[in-house]
Formats: sequence, C-alpha cells, structure tokens
Amino acid sequence: MGTPLLMKFENNIYLEGDKLVIIDRRRLPSEIVPLYCRTYEDVALAIEKMAVQGAGDIAVAAGFGLYLAARETERKKGKIPAELKRAAARLEATRPTGFHLKALLNKIMTRVEGQSGAASDFIHSYLQGVIARQDSVSRETGKHAETLLVPGDTILTHCFAGAGLLYMLQFARDHKKEIKVICTETRPYLQGARLTAWSVSELGLDTTLITDNMAAHFMSKGMISKIFTAADRISMDGTVANKIGTLQLAICAEFFRIPFYVLAYGGPDRGTPSAEDIPIEERDPEEVLLFQGIRITGPSVKAFYPAFDLTPARLITGVVTSSGVISLQR
Amino acid sequence: MGTPLLMKFENNIYLEGDKLVIIDRRRLPSEIVPLYCRTYEDVALAIEKMAVQGAGDIAVAAGFGLYLAARETERKKGKIPAELKRAAARLEATRPTGFHLKALLNKIMTRVEGQSGAASDFIHSYLQGVIARQDSVSRETGKHAETLLVPGDTILTHCFAGAGLLYMLQFARDHKKEIKVICTETRPYLQGARLTAWSVSELGLDTTLITDNMAAHFMSKGMISKIFTAADRISMDGTVANKIGTLQLAICAEFFRIPFYVLAYGGPDRGTPSAEDIPIEERDPEEVLLFQGIRITGPSVKAFYPAFDLTPARLITGVVTSSGVISLQR
Repeated sequence: MGTPLLMKFENNIYLEGDKLVIIDRRRLPSEIVPLYCRTYEDVALAIEKMAVQGAGDIAVAAGFGLYLAARETERKKGKIPAELKRAAARLEATRPTGFHLKALLNKIMTRVEGQSGAASDFIHSYLQGVIARQDSVSRETGKHAETLLVPGDTILTHCFAGAGLLYMLQFARDHKKEIKVICTETRPYLQGARLTAWSVSELGLDTTLITDNMAAHFMSKGMISKIFTAADRISMDGTVANKIGTLQLAICAEFFRIPFYVLAYGGPDRGTPSAEDIPIEERDPEEVLLFQGIRITGPSVKAFYPAFDLTPARLITGVVTSSGVISLQR
Repeated sequence: MGTPLLMKFENNIYLEGDKLVIIDRRRLPSEIVPLYCRTYEDVALAIEKMAVQGAGDIAVAAGFGLYLAARETERKKGKIPAELKRAAARLEATRPTGFHLKALLNKIMTRVEGQSGAASDFIHSYLQGVIARQDSVSRETGKHAETLLVPGDTILTHCFAGAGLLYMLQFARDHKKEIKVICTETRPYLQGARLTAWSVSELGLDTTLITDNMAAHFMSKGMISKIFTAADRISMDGTVANKIGTLQLAICAEFFRIPFYVLAYGGPDRGTPSAEDIPIEERDPEEVLLFQGIRITGPSVKAFYPAFDLTPARLITGVVTSSGVISLQR
C-alpha cells in the first residue's frame, strides 16, 4: 500500500517554476488534474471554488498566493508592501470560517516587513517551515488519536478530516488493530466519497461509503464504535465549527452513546472567544441545486448552502491535538 | 397554480390499451418520460428500479402487474390461477419493507378466485376502487395534518411523503397560512429534490432545498418549526419504517424539541407486531457508489444502501391518519 496522495501536502500543492500547481480536489479521485495558478487571484479563485480544501491546506495555498504576488511585483519592480497588502486582503476574503488562513497571512505580513532580502524568498522559506510543521502536527495528532482505537473498531468519519486521520489509521494498521472505516459522502461536494474514502482505501483498510442520511441507522445497529471529524475552527468555549453535517452526527452519537472525537491539530483559536464569533460561510445555492451541470429540482425551488455548522462542546467526547487527547465531559 | 403531477395517481400510472404507463420518477422533474410495461415482469422491474416509488403507489402499480398477467393469460387461454400466483409472487418480492404491496396483492388474489367473469375485469375494477380510496385517504390525511399548521410555520420534510403532504399544503395555502417548506434532497435517489421540492413549488409555496446533512443546522438556528415525513410501514409498537434518514431527523428534532409528525395514511399494519418484524430492504451498493452514472470514490471502496430505517415511537410527536391525529408522548 502506498501513501495516499492527500497525506502529503507537497504532492498536492507545489511550485513549478513561477506557477503554483494545485491538484484539483474537485476532480479526485477519478482524475488527477493539475490546476496552474500564475497570480494570487488565480489562487484566490482556486480556494473559493474549492479546488483546494481543508483549513490548513487553504492557509498554505493562500501563503503561496502571497509568494506569487511578491515575485510578480519584484519582477516589475513595483511596490511590495502595497501589492502584498492587496493580495492578503483578497486571499483572506475567500473563506471566512477557518481561522488558519487569516492567522497565516497575518504572520507572513507582520514578518515580511523587517526582512532585508527579497520578500518572495522570505515567504517561500517561511512556507517551507509551515508545511514541515503542519506535517509534524498531523503526524502527532494522528499518533495521539490512534491511542483511542482498539482492535476491531469501526469508525465513522465525515468530510475529509485531513492527514491526521490518515496518520491515525496508518499507525493503527502498523499496530495490527484492523480498523474498519465508514465514510459519509458529504454532499454537496462529496469530499467524504472522493477524498476520504479513496485515501483510506489506499491505506488498504476496509472502507465503506454511505450517504449522509444513513449515519444514525448504522449507529442504531451498533455498527459504529467511534466517530472522528476534524474542525475548521474551535472557539475558546469549545464549540467546533466543521463541515456541515457534523452537528447532526454529534447529536446522534450522543443519542446512541458513541464516543465523538475531534481532530483539532493545533487546538482551539485563542482569537475566537465563543461560538458567536465564528462566521459561518454561506456558499452559492447553485452548488446545491446543480449536480455536474444538471439541475436536480424544479425551476422555482431555492436552496441554502451553509458550508459549516457549530457543534457545542457538551456533544464532544474528546479533542485530539498534536500535544495529546483532551477528554471532555460525556 | 396547477395540481402537481404527483398529487394524482391517475396522471402517473395508467393503462393505455394493453400497456401500463408509468411516468418514470427517476427522470422527474427535468423530463416527463412514460415507461411502457407490457408484462408483469416489466412492472416488477419498474418497481425494483424505482421508476415508481411510495408504498401506496408501488402497491397499485403491482396490482396492474397482476392485471397485465391476467389479460395475457386470458388472451392465450392459459391457466389463470397458476399464472396469477406466479405473477403475485414475483411482484411481492420486489420491495420488502412497505406492507401495502403484499396486502393489496393478497386481497386481489383472495377475491379473484370466487369471480365468475374475467379475472382481468375484476382486477381492473378493483384497482379503480383502490385508487379512488387512496386519493380519499390522502386527502383526509392532508386535511387532518393541516390542522397542525399555524401561519408562518416552516416545515421540514424528507423524501417524498406522498399526496397527503401536498393536500396538507394545498389546504394550508387555501386557508392563507403561508407555510414555507424545506426539503432534504434525500440521497441517493434525490426524491426530496426531484419529487417533493418540485411538487411543493408547483403549489406556489416558498420551497428550499437542502442536502441531507444540513437538517440539524437549520433546526439549531430555529428555522424549522415542524417536521413531517411519511411511513412505509408502522408496526403495532409504533415503530416507523420510512426512507433512510428519517431516524436521524427524528433524533435531532427531539434534541431541539421540534414536533415530528408522521403521515400514516391508513395507519399501522396489524400484521406487523413490532420493529423486529419489519424487513429492511438492502439495495444495490452501486446506487451509492455512482452519482448520476459517475463513480464518486476509489475502486476498492464498498458501500451500504439500506433503503429504510426504523424510528421508535418515543421520537414521534404525532401520527396523522385519514381518521385524525394521534398524539404520542413527547
């Protein structure tokens, strides 16, 4: 069994000369299609249109957007600070719910000012550090999460919980724990089907896809022993913002007394005191009304598309970070 | 505003000479395509492949399958009882969860024996009575359900709850109650998007489509005041078998204290004492692995497809039949 493509950031998002290559996640797994970004605007569009997803990956992709802006401005001998500010504002506006994006752009913008060398060189090497750190955080998160698994567990997961989930399963496999994985398909973008189920099956694990409305049924049948999701942001009151659908899984998990764990990687965001401070991104309703260009309902039907929901801390059994497992009440 | 196509059985399933025409529900609403059934086997396949759905509609379609079998046997001067028995067994085996199918076939088979005239004539006129009775049951169920609505309600509904739901909304509209409707899309067949949202919008109501994983989010925002689903079968202990996804809606409704009503039309099935006596149909996993013909995950990923789930009585606020509303504990 090889390493799943999505387990390593550098296989998904990387520089090729002066272009940023993003493997288009909307086309996975049936096709591995590179998307070439020449400008920060290209990167912003790739983030908005979800060619790249996952809070950490979005943040680093946006960092590369800043890098492209710096390179271009240097080439034209333009005004770096003004152009970078414009680029950072544009990139930050792409997706409001995750906090990593804003945090990383802010860090780069603060630090790039005092640099004596080329801004692009600084940003590039800074991002290399971030990528290495994110991989190590994912690995450590996966290592701690793995301690929660016992042989024979069948876990349910929603959307794509990132490399930490894959590390967890890889460690469990190496420890011969024989874990089965059930993935919700995660409408409307089907990240669970296209990214998670595919990646988990690449690890050689028994992998089953279900539609989002089947989760409680399998819980009621005793077929799910633990649930793991990621978090796009955790506020300081313990509220978890994650892919739409997480809340109802957590409610059903409590109903059936199934442990519900959140892979929180770097942990909660100190800048977000409570649930009310988390903006929920509303995406274009057309993304719900159409599938692959085909309208699936009548012409006068509207749609809603909140991309995330909020799960209160009392529904969460434990939060797993790169430092260890934090048990919450249950 | 016209009458939604799916509100009247005779617009959807009807005889044209010696053929049964079924408007193919898998193609709605983008295309209105007649499917021609010449034999009972054609009808059995149409039921299995879900060209027709809904417990009552499936039962009558199967009844017409018996009619086609009788006609053909009469034409060939074959042995009616033997051929009808074969046809009834084949038709009954198509979908195990709903009880109307088996019940109607049994009634026809019991009564056709004592008939002096042609079996096909008897079956035909018997089915006319069933269709008229089903319409009247739907209308009465809708009338009672409408008394549960107050002006300004936003109801959530799942899958296609049948003509009773449309009657309910039509009565509410006539009483100027201004009801808004949110429909779950109901993967994998998207009946909620294709049948319900379309039909409700045809009644002129404010209609919004959401994916199945969004329901709890809108409940948490106070945007849903009541929930209505149908039932494919209710056992005598009050367990509701309905489209997969009903259970998790009911659990979330209880969590947010939102009334959850079931349109039960003719009521529970006296032949089904308890939940354990309801067989849950397992459909072909390919129907989950493919989305409109395109595979959505990796090649070694499996899938499950239980078509129904079981919701215990304690999660149900009330059951609406053609005789009235039965309030349950909450």
